[in-house]
Amino acid sequence: MQHSIDCLSCMLSQAVKSAKNHIPDEEERKKLIRGIIADMASLDESVTSPYIAGRIQAALRKAMNDPDPYVQDKKYYNEEMLKLEDDLFKIRDSYENPFAAGIKLAASGNIIDFAPGYDLSREKVMEIIDQTLAMDIPRDVLLSFQKDLKNASTFLYLGDNAGEIVFDKIFIATIKNYYPELEIYFATRGKPILNDVTEEDAYIIGMDKFARIINNGTAIPGTDLSVCSSDFRKVFADSDVIISKGQGNFETLYGSGHKNIYYLFLCKCSHFMEMLGARQNDLMFIKE
Amino acid sequence: MQHSIDCLSCMLSQAVKSAKNHIPDEEERKKLIRGIIADMASLDESVTSPYIAGRIQAALRKAMNDPDPYVQDKKYYNEEMLKLEDDLFKIRDSYENPFAAGIKLAASGNIIDFAPGYDLSREKVMEIIDQTLAMDIPRDVLLSFQKDLKNASTFLYLGDNAGEIVFDKIFIATIKNYYPELEIYFATRGKPILNDVTEEDAYIIGMDKFARIINNGTAIPGTDLSVCSSDFRKVFADSDVIISKGQGNFETLYGSGHKNIYYLFLCKCSHFMEMLGARQNDLMFIKE
Repeated sequence: MQHSIDCLSCMLSQAVKSAKNHIPDEEERKKLIRGIIADMASLDESVTSPYIAGRIQAALRKAMNDPDPYVQDKKYYNEEMLKLEDDLFKIRDSYENPFAAGIKLAASGNIIDFAPGYDLSREKVMEIIDQTLAMDIPRDVLLSFQKDLKNASTFLYLGDNAGEIVFDKIFIATIKNYYPELEIYFATRGKPILNDVTEEDAYIIGMDKFARIINNGTAIPGTDLSVCSSDFRKVFADSDVIISKGQGNFETLYGSGHKNIYYLFLCKCSHFMEMLGARQNDLMFIKE
Repeated sequence: MQHSIDCLSCMLSQAVKSAKNHIPDEEERKKLIRGIIADMASLDESVTSPYIAGRIQAALRKAMNDPDPYVQDKKYYNEEMLKLEDDLFKIRDSYENPFAAGIKLAASGNIIDFAPGYDLSREKVMEIIDQTLAMDIPRDVLLSFQKDLKNASTFLYLGDNAGEIVFDKIFIATIKNYYPELEIYFATRGKPILNDVTEEDAYIIGMDKFARIINNGTAIPGTDLSVCSSDFRKVFADSDVIISKGQGNFETLYGSGHKNIYYLFLCKCSHFMEMLGARQNDLMFIKE
């Protein structure tokens, strides 16, 4: 999906905030931001917002001389959310429809995304879990998803952020319970980008117990097929059913034409709230 | 003063907001914002933030095909604030030091600036007046200002916004009471720019009773001497004392070298709050 003008100003604000937090020298900071603006000005208007975010983050990493500035944060959120794992399984099993509860839990984990500067205290995370579990998921989409899984032999789950991946694991374990014959792939980003999951995060939280871990070959906070590795594109095209988790994956994949792709995320930006008629943090479960 | 990187992201956000409010066609909106980003990328890093704002507003006016989009708002705020005029004079006279009260009233009028999207209800304006009157002004700056006026024969007041200008009139009338021999100039912008005062606004609120009205020849929300008219620059250089009102005038003039220039404004941006160690809406009365 083409980026919107809201994305441009939002990403520039975030870049300025990051530069102020991480680049001590003011002249260097100015040079960096001027470079980012010049790069924005040169971009084709068809590119996705995560693609631009990828370029901005690459410029930031270079200026910071740090190939993975969020490595400690990712580690922290993986560890914190792993502590919740047993509780999350219990919550799921306390519901009449554990499958639907698993979807909602996965969606609620989408709150763990610090790019837009959310409050991520334990209280906030628990509050969002409660709120999200209380939301309805569209019944027609749920039934269609279950029907597609029943007929599928391969299933691909596109991960989003560290920490959040623990919630994805609960959902994937649930799918595995219901459809034990399914061959499941879990895809991460190809290289460190913001707090997005890498293969390392997937192994750390034990995703390999339920899914085959692959990466998409890019350092973009989304899944921009035009730049993903050919290995990944093959798995994507050959998958019978796909879950695309998070707004960044939605932004890059919506309209890309896979016949059985389901988008699962909490609605975060005002731009998508307008586009989808949603309120902030509304649960989105959309079949394209 | 050179613009900061905060200014760039803030101005781009404002431009996106304006484009969404005033340009119905999405393609045109995108073209406009892309043009603004390209223009930002091409600018010399020494330019002031109001200079950039002037260019952005020129692009917006052109896209809107409207040479003065804020004309109705300016009219409204002038009229609304004129209704407060008698009360403002009474407030001033109720103070032990009406001269200091006049300065504070002028500063409080600086709240009427809708560029950063403030709440401008009558309640909010009255609340800010009360808050500002309760603040201290630096005693040394006040005494220096009075001493400079005593020795001066010409005084220049650089106006800021419509509506606010009524508060400036109270202060200028006060100065006229105390220093009746002083030749007073009141300077407006040269052409419509945002809600900034034009000569027309100054005549509408009756500034000509107290001061000779001149304009600076530019459509910039500040006083960027490098582009002001030579007539204005002569008055500026020849003035014995100057009041520079509002953040935009401060941003463009601070460091420009006039020996008796006083800056009066409410601190609005986080950038200036950091720079000046102030909280939002703190009264600034600074002698350079």
